[in-house]
Amino acid sequence: MSELSPHESRLKNLSEKIAIEGLNALWITNMVNIRYLTGFTGSYAQVVATPHKTYFYTDGRYREQVDQEVSGCEIRVFVGTTWLEVLSEEILDRDWSHIGFEGTHLNVALYEKIQKLKSKSDPVGWKSTSGWVEELRIAKDESEKDALRRSSRVVDQVFDRLVLELREGITEKEILRKMLNHLWEYGATGPSFDPIVLFGARSSLPHGQPSENTLHAGDWVLLDFGAVVDGYCSDCTRTFVFGEPDTIQSERHALIYEAQKAGIAAVRAGASGKGVDAASRRIIEEAGLGDAFMHGLGHGVGLEIHEPPRLASSSKDILQNGAVVTVEPGIYIPGWGGIRIEDAVIVGEESCEPLTSCDHSISPF
Amino acid sequence: MSELSPHESRLKNLSEKIAIEGLNALWITNMVNIRYLTGFTGSYAQVVATPHKTYFYTDGRYREQVDQEVSGCEIRVFVGTTWLEVLSEEILDRDWSHIGFEGTHLNVALYEKIQKLKSKSDPVGWKSTSGWVEELRIAKDESEKDALRRSSRVVDQVFDRLVLELREGITEKEILRKMLNHLWEYGATGPSFDPIVLFGARSSLPHGQPSENTLHAGDWVLLDFGAVVDGYCSDCTRTFVFGEPDTIQSERHALIYEAQKAGIAAVRAGASGKGVDAASRRIIEEAGLGDAFMHGLGHGVGLEIHEPPRLASSSKDILQNGAVVTVEPGIYIPGWGGIRIEDAVIVGEESCEPLTSCDHSISPF
Repeated sequence: MSELSPHESRLKNLSEKIAIEGLNALWITNMVNIRYLTGFTGSYAQVVATPHKTYFYTDGRYREQVDQEVSGCEIRVFVGTTWLEVLSEEILDRDWSHIGFEGTHLNVALYEKIQKLKSKSDPVGWKSTSGWVEELRIAKDESEKDALRRSSRVVDQVFDRLVLELREGITEKEILRKMLNHLWEYGATGPSFDPIVLFGARSSLPHGQPSENTLHAGDWVLLDFGAVVDGYCSDCTRTFVFGEPDTIQSERHALIYEAQKAGIAAVRAGASGKGVDAASRRIIEEAGLGDAFMHGLGHGVGLEIHEPPRLASSSKDILQNGAVVTVEPGIYIPGWGGIRIEDAVIVGEESCEPLTSCDHSISPF
Repeated sequence: MSELSPHESRLKNLSEKIAIEGLNALWITNMVNIRYLTGFTGSYAQVVATPHKTYFYTDGRYREQVDQEVSGCEIRVFVGTTWLEVLSEEILDRDWSHIGFEGTHLNVALYEKIQKLKSKSDPVGWKSTSGWVEELRIAKDESEKDALRRSSRVVDQVFDRLVLELREGITEKEILRKMLNHLWEYGATGPSFDPIVLFGARSSLPHGQPSENTLHAGDWVLLDFGAVVDGYCSDCTRTFVFGEPDTIQSERHALIYEAQKAGIAAVRAGASGKGVDAASRRIIEEAGLGDAFMHGLGHGVGLEIHEPPRLASSSKDILQNGAVVTVEPGIYIPGWGGIRIEDAVIVGEESCEPLTSCDHSISPF
């Protein structure tokens, strides 16, 4: 018996779902889901999965690439025609009358167009689905865990380099450039999101952009960044003081680190996203700083930088074995600064595996 | 009389359109359109434009940033609530019953949710709109042209540097890294898309990804890249030979360059996207290579790397004064290589202004 490749195995899981839901086919337009299911890394394709077979459509620009990357699908390269015409013919040829589409991805204008397509017998019944592939993506398989570990290792290496390159008067933008350089140098195909590099009081901007702001002794340094390796995103934040921290800085940093460790300690299969958030948040609230922690504790990460599940007071998610989530408590005090400490972890049965391990301390020099 | 800022002027144009269409409000969810209308550079916001006033919604993470960037709008920062609740209250408060949304952006799942919102008197009539803001974005104003010129200047500078850095045995990935470095060095906030760097026969992959492939004498070098400066994208392709070109390389390169110049010569306000495509394509077809040019001649460029209008045989667009389009004929011959030459140009009344001007020749050394 031959073993299935990761992509074949993912397509098989999806096919079973499609059969159980009583559909002829699921039309997939979200490129991240297409990459997950087929391995295709290009920017344009559509996939129609059925209970027995998967059809892969792309245009002439990707003819060679699709041959190199995609297996286990029937490939159709369309030239001089539109995806709508191709889909229309397939539906008619195969007499598909129950077709699902990705309701959280397909836009209303396209939805209006597909309403007009016809099958041989009945009119097509379109079913808006939500998160079928995303649900499969939550629990990472071994090949994905491996990619996430490698992606996270790059972050650790880059962090260690950056710490040595900080000096009085350097700007946030200069550190950003060094960071991006090091990411490539250590094998990332790029950053997993626009990195955040903030000094001093600007660290209180939860999503601030790097500026010409310069570094001085006693300033906060907040670095929030990740790598992409084989398509998988890492995500890590460190906050520390350049030079000697004062007493309040030290106390509050210790508080956030304690809150982060409490969050990580609460992560295991079966725990709730709400419960893990509470385990960490409680510590910040008890110190009277609950109002300064105005975001959720964390989010899933994988092929995308933000995925399910969510760790938050409003989350209804239960953590699955093999899910990957960030744990990132933070406080933001305008005019004074912000502190956030973040690691992504792989959820295990009894505990979790932190993916990044670079120095968490307030003085990582 | 005070002069309107670019953003105020854009909001005014949109307000007039909303009034003419008989809507109470247009709900805008596309972040690029939001940046265009308000100047906000963050990643999450929603805008509700009305004939008289514009409401800007974002969450707590962007409180400080929105104050720095956005003017001319009533700003609501929501915390501990969802955009759906906020929108629901606004609709009820203001008794909006005719609301447009961006049908080419809003997904079906959200559309199903907003169907349930209620105004005071009538049920809300939701109108799917398409391209209202995108239409305003086609003709660039002076501030946008200036940003596009600066963004394109960076590309010229980076190209000149890269040409000097090519050497026997260097890999596509190494050139990619140098390219990305130089982009930042010359002031870009990043590349405007994943750059294409291909050597030898790999240049026939219209969207190939840089690899460990090494450079040798007589190889094609294809560089397709752009910068982002103040949010505006540049886009430029050059193809040349490392070392001495052979006769066929020289002939075909001259052909594509001739086709590109013919395309550029055809660009002016009032010309059709179909006509400009034909002016360039004819030259390649007459040389018997029409089948190897399997994409459209060009696309609009601005805040996004692909915008309207299109230059293609299937295009129905007429070029407006102030539009910006790429002109990029190419041929792709598997096993031998590909040649593409591309510049973006600003459409003028009588002719056009090319934005990039780095060396077009087959031996730019």
